[in-house]
Amino acid sequence: MPDDILLPEIEVHDLAFAFLRHHGLSAAQSEAMARVLTRAQRDGCLSHGLQRLPGTLETMAHPAFNREAEPKLARVTPAVVSVDADHGFSILASSAGIPALVDSARRLGIGVLAGRNGFHSTALWPQVEDIAAQGLAALSMNPTHDWVAPAGGVRPVLGTNPLAFAWPRPGRRPYVFDFATSAASRADIALHRQQGRALPEGWGLDPGGRPSTDPAAVLDGAMLPFGGHKGSALATMIELLAGPFLGDRTSRQSAAFDAGHRAAPCHGELILAFDPGLLGGPEHHAAAEEMLDAITDQGARLPGARRHAARDKAGREGIPVSRALHRRILAMMAG
Amino acid sequence: MPDDILLPEIEVHDLAFAFLRHHGLSAAQSEAMARVLTRAQRDGCLSHGLQRLPGTLETMAHPAFNREAEPKLARVTPAVVSVDADHGFSILASSAGIPALVDSARRLGIGVLAGRNGFHSTALWPQVEDIAAQGLAALSMNPTHDWVAPAGGVRPVLGTNPLAFAWPRPGRRPYVFDFATSAASRADIALHRQQGRALPEGWGLDPGGRPSTDPAAVLDGAMLPFGGHKGSALATMIELLAGPFLGDRTSRQSAAFDAGHRAAPCHGELILAFDPGLLGGPEHHAAAEEMLDAITDQGARLPGARRHAARDKAGREGIPVSRALHRRILAMMAG
Repeated sequence: MPDDILLPEIEVHDLAFAFLRHHGLSAAQSEAMARVLTRAQRDGCLSHGLQRLPGTLETMAHPAFNREAEPKLARVTPAVVSVDADHGFSILASSAGIPALVDSARRLGIGVLAGRNGFHSTALWPQVEDIAAQGLAALSMNPTHDWVAPAGGVRPVLGTNPLAFAWPRPGRRPYVFDFATSAASRADIALHRQQGRALPEGWGLDPGGRPSTDPAAVLDGAMLPFGGHKGSALATMIELLAGPFLGDRTSRQSAAFDAGHRAAPCHGELILAFDPGLLGGPEHHAAAEEMLDAITDQGARLPGARRHAARDKAGREGIPVSRALHRRILAMMAG
Repeated sequence: MPDDILLPEIEVHDLAFAFLRHHGLSAAQSEAMARVLTRAQRDGCLSHGLQRLPGTLETMAHPAFNREAEPKLARVTPAVVSVDADHGFSILASSAGIPALVDSARRLGIGVLAGRNGFHSTALWPQVEDIAAQGLAALSMNPTHDWVAPAGGVRPVLGTNPLAFAWPRPGRRPYVFDFATSAASRADIALHRQQGRALPEGWGLDPGGRPSTDPAAVLDGAMLPFGGHKGSALATMIELLAGPFLGDRTSRQSAAFDAGHRAAPCHGELILAFDPGLLGGPEHHAAAEEMLDAITDQGARLPGARRHAARDKAGREGIPVSRALHRRILAMMAG
């Protein structure tokens, strides 16, 4: 018997929706979460797929979590829309703000979505991809918890602070990337621990601030940024722009707010949208295509290629879901 | 006799200004260039200091270069100002656009400066630092020439695409970084060649696409991005946002436009400004300070620390200028 079962997209969605409703999450939040988890599962981005469902219970158990949260949208300036997630999951709030963000970018050439007070446990790429599907470029970032030491440092200060970007391509899927500014994800380090494998050099420090390849020591100590002082600088920028600039928490503050509940980090999320049609004409869009083609023509991959391949396969065969995870989710809904 | 002479700031400025005027550059362009080269020299950022002066002659010799260029400023939308450098040096144009950029950010929370058609040979950090001195955060980026292979590739497509960011700190110098998205700068590789030293692993490929530590082979082949596929993705984003989004050239197009003249790259420059006072209050700015202090309190350095130390020393003692360079600049003005 294979380890995975293949499910139609609607079944994956309905399973996630039913799980979240069963555990008391509002219909609107359950729907937004089910959609984004299904997309990640479909695109082979398993760390942000159905695997996130069991952990939602820890997040919903945080004393500040609001199962009935309703996003509060405010037009701050013609360029800036703010959406307070009302201490629910961030995905419903940021989704609710995207139409106003798109509207700003179409009118002004740029728009800012300031998401606030959301428990964040979903990938950034689905939303920048959605914005690119409307013909705009998008850049998104958020802090997490203070798990990462700055370059040259020994103690954690920064989050794993992801950065995602999308650029629309006429008649093709958009160019999309989404990466953590830590050398590796926390989930990847935890997986090494589970499998009893040593980490590659450069992923982290032990609690004494010494370089370590022991996953348990690194999880107790500090992760490291990717790319040395440059990645560290980028992670610091994300702390500032997706924290204080939004009037929301740094990764240190988000961890303090969690207070050991092991909930998803509660913080802000910045999305910028840019209209490539404002200053650029068809010849500039053609030059963008030519540049991207020059990357793939030499055999290098664009960041979204693996997701697109998984998406195409899932469209033909159904979405693979680990049998063990499927059983676990069903068991957590029994009784 | 020491290798350096120490000059007062005004003398460094006047030397640069006189050199550029001597070679026929307009007074306004000479002044803007002299100011930014002096700041770089003062802050110990020698690669972007007076050392750039001899190379300005190659740039001014490009058939498209305009010694009498006058920046053309246009208010595209309430959020976006465009400044065409009129094929002069980009620094005068972007400086001319900053007041309108600051005005947009103060009114709307965000502003965009779209610099276009400028020959770019100056560092990005002085301008983001100036914007931060006005209480705003700033993010700046530009393409260069296609010297860098994408991660997983063998041939150059991307520029060395620098990214600079500044965040204002109440009562303190702003947090500022400025880094190339290539593993090393082109100047650094050229210096290794000149000194007959091998490159560290990971800086580049030979013309056959094989990893190489031979600086001459890498200059003929391809440089590599910093941080693997993440740095490569970031450099690609900069191509798109500071190229086609601005209605200007990619690094490939900029190199084609140069057509072997060895001028500074002619391209666009994107500067975003953000108002940290729009959504964030004093408690958020205090949290930003606390996060930055947590980096330095453990002995890690903030990116601007070396520049600040050089600036303080220059303020006390004068600005060090290499005797050989000083002689060379004077000789190039004789007759």
